[in-house]
Amino acid sequence: MPVNLSAPNPQDLHPVPGVQIGVAMAGVRKANRRDLTVVTLAEGSAVAGVFTKNRFCAAPVQICQKHLAAGTDIRALLVNTGNANAGTGEDGLVRAQTTCIALARHLDIAPEQVLPFSTGVIMETLPIDRIQAGLPAALADLKADNWALAAEGIMTTDTLPKAASRQVKVGNATVTVTGISKGAGMIKPNMATMLGYVATDAKIAPALLQGLAKDAADASFNRITIDGDTSTNDSFVVIATRQADHAEITSWDSPEGRAVREAVIAVSVQLAQAIVRDGEGATKFITITVEGGRDEAECRLAAYAIAHSPLVKTAFFASDPNLGRILAAVGYAGIDDLDQNLIELHLDDVHVVTKGGRRPEYREEDGQRVMKQSEITIRVGLARGTAATTLWTCDLSHDYVTINADYRS
Amino acid sequence: MPVNLSAPNPQDLHPVPGVQIGVAMAGVRKANRRDLTVVTLAEGSAVAGVFTKNRFCAAPVQICQKHLAAGTDIRALLVNTGNANAGTGEDGLVRAQTTCIALARHLDIAPEQVLPFSTGVIMETLPIDRIQAGLPAALADLKADNWALAAEGIMTTDTLPKAASRQVKVGNATVTVTGISKGAGMIKPNMATMLGYVATDAKIAPALLQGLAKDAADASFNRITIDGDTSTNDSFVVIATRQADHAEITSWDSPEGRAVREAVIAVSVQLAQAIVRDGEGATKFITITVEGGRDEAECRLAAYAIAHSPLVKTAFFASDPNLGRILAAVGYAGIDDLDQNLIELHLDDVHVVTKGGRRPEYREEDGQRVMKQSEITIRVGLARGTAATTLWTCDLSHDYVTINADYRS
Repeated sequence: MPVNLSAPNPQDLHPVPGVQIGVAMAGVRKANRRDLTVVTLAEGSAVAGVFTKNRFCAAPVQICQKHLAAGTDIRALLVNTGNANAGTGEDGLVRAQTTCIALARHLDIAPEQVLPFSTGVIMETLPIDRIQAGLPAALADLKADNWALAAEGIMTTDTLPKAASRQVKVGNATVTVTGISKGAGMIKPNMATMLGYVATDAKIAPALLQGLAKDAADASFNRITIDGDTSTNDSFVVIATRQADHAEITSWDSPEGRAVREAVIAVSVQLAQAIVRDGEGATKFITITVEGGRDEAECRLAAYAIAHSPLVKTAFFASDPNLGRILAAVGYAGIDDLDQNLIELHLDDVHVVTKGGRRPEYREEDGQRVMKQSEITIRVGLARGTAATTLWTCDLSHDYVTINADYRS
Repeated sequence: MPVNLSAPNPQDLHPVPGVQIGVAMAGVRKANRRDLTVVTLAEGSAVAGVFTKNRFCAAPVQICQKHLAAGTDIRALLVNTGNANAGTGEDGLVRAQTTCIALARHLDIAPEQVLPFSTGVIMETLPIDRIQAGLPAALADLKADNWALAAEGIMTTDTLPKAASRQVKVGNATVTVTGISKGAGMIKPNMATMLGYVATDAKIAPALLQGLAKDAADASFNRITIDGDTSTNDSFVVIATRQADHAEITSWDSPEGRAVREAVIAVSVQLAQAIVRDGEGATKFITITVEGGRDEAECRLAAYAIAHSPLVKTAFFASDPNLGRILAAVGYAGIDDLDQNLIELHLDDVHVVTKGGRRPEYREEDGQRVMKQSEITIRVGLARGTAATTLWTCDLSHDYVTINADYRS
């Protein structure tokens, strides 16, 4: 059961001028499910992406990076679920390229203008015949208001499609930002999440887009973790079709630039948080803030140690205020000269630990009250500086084990 | 259900001349369970220890380090279960010292000659009145052949007591090495495990003992992980009562030195592996070997990434040869310039991956056959050097979640 998340209402997902989406059932792994998504972009669109830091990155990730680096205008995205085309060696690269060639022929563009994405089981051969056979149906389905179907078409073990959309005024124009994501497990993105796409029609100078993609990822997908497993296929793409009727944005340091940038980041954060809310087996949405660090890096060490501790995660699943486990995680996070006698710990509004020990005033029933909530904030103070960071995670439940023990069955 | 582990037969645990053990029920946390263990050491014994690297180390760990550093002969160990006396601030330190003072009075020694150990729930006040009240019963129970009871007396969520013992000839003397350990969860020891004690009557030069403790920990407790959580209380102690009738061992580079050293390490390895076999919810004992690394450090990075991946661990629980998860873990382990196209993967005798991709000859049923075993070896080749490492871990099952969601209830 996702935590305070519901399927997006298709009416709430504003089409982005210049973006068309088609979804089909290609039987990549299972029959009768939407597993093939084609996105076409109008001429003049700018595209940027950030990708997994996993050294064992999937074939489509390698092809995406190559095509983006080539500098040719990207005109289409091709996404399949059911098969990650990772751990597939040279053969996997050829197969990913073959799908780009097939889609490019249909669209009369060059293969380098296609970005391929795959998600699903690792180390199995990508069935390109089925993908090629599914392309005509996906192309016949191309329309501007297909975002909800696309959100469904990229799911794996997600229980709900994930999408977000908003509009902002830029000059006299109304600019749209709409995006979709998928996640569920193997989620500790490193520069991006499993799959995330955010498109806008804002007329953003192409040179600004890669920086925006990085900033948006750092504020959103790079702040979430479910199980600490960084996927082989993480990809996050920001698209600007540049069709909105306003003066080109050439700097973020203007009212128009700020408005668009904030909208893109807000949509990215909503999509990233949706991944945690629908994390495999999640029953709680947990915000972890570590403050008082010397730099953000050490705050992140402590926050990830808490977020990845199976003991912390199972205690939250059980609504058990066994909060010493949080202290233990901070202790082994790798901050070498940490003084344990300065640590403070709050659980929402409840001040649990002061100067490294349990506060005499702390009462277990207060911790218990907070632990029973579905949304909880853990706040740790290191009292050694002014840096801080925040990330989002979920608990570890029986369902996580069930889902991952059964994923391929 | 522990993996190929049974309770030790008390008759197999050779007493160590110079060591006496008494166990009592003190009601530290629960009534009617053995939770207080006293170990006394004959005059002239040498003691060395290695302790958790967790910055949030428990009060007894801090006292142990202080007492060992003081250089006074250690004459007694005091171990309680049910309460870890961690995250307890200044008050916890005073309480740990108070228990040392109480035991020292009974034994007519100095408090600095006592090493205190606590294991159990974090962040709760140590009930020193109950421990003090339990001391007379523990002291009345002191005897040489109480190792099996002591192994029981230090358990927390362990389902079985853990002990190992062996004898070796040194000159004309028969030297004994006997030890006990406890573990279960919060196990990724860093220089030691939750609690491990190995005693020998070998006449080891005291100056050699600290090096032996470190080497034995590195070969055993520092090669195991259950959930990646490094405890606040990890302690591993090596005792030499020096009562055996042979020439003093002043170097490991002699037949006698090697025999004793190997026996201490063998007992330590057996105790460490027993912790994994009885890991919380464990159904499989997994040996991970990473070879072909440039140095051991990068082999350890990859091995721990595999061992800590919830996705790998749940796949092993399910006996599902979803082996791409192992490649993904190697990929995000943090070896920056790893070439994925060189990776090899064996599962026991089955060669699964070559040059980063699935071998054409690999058949799923071969992987399935190995995955169904209760003992499995994962062997990863990095093909970039000659370094290697091995560690031991277990799977992640529903019972792990159940145990840790219910631990305090």
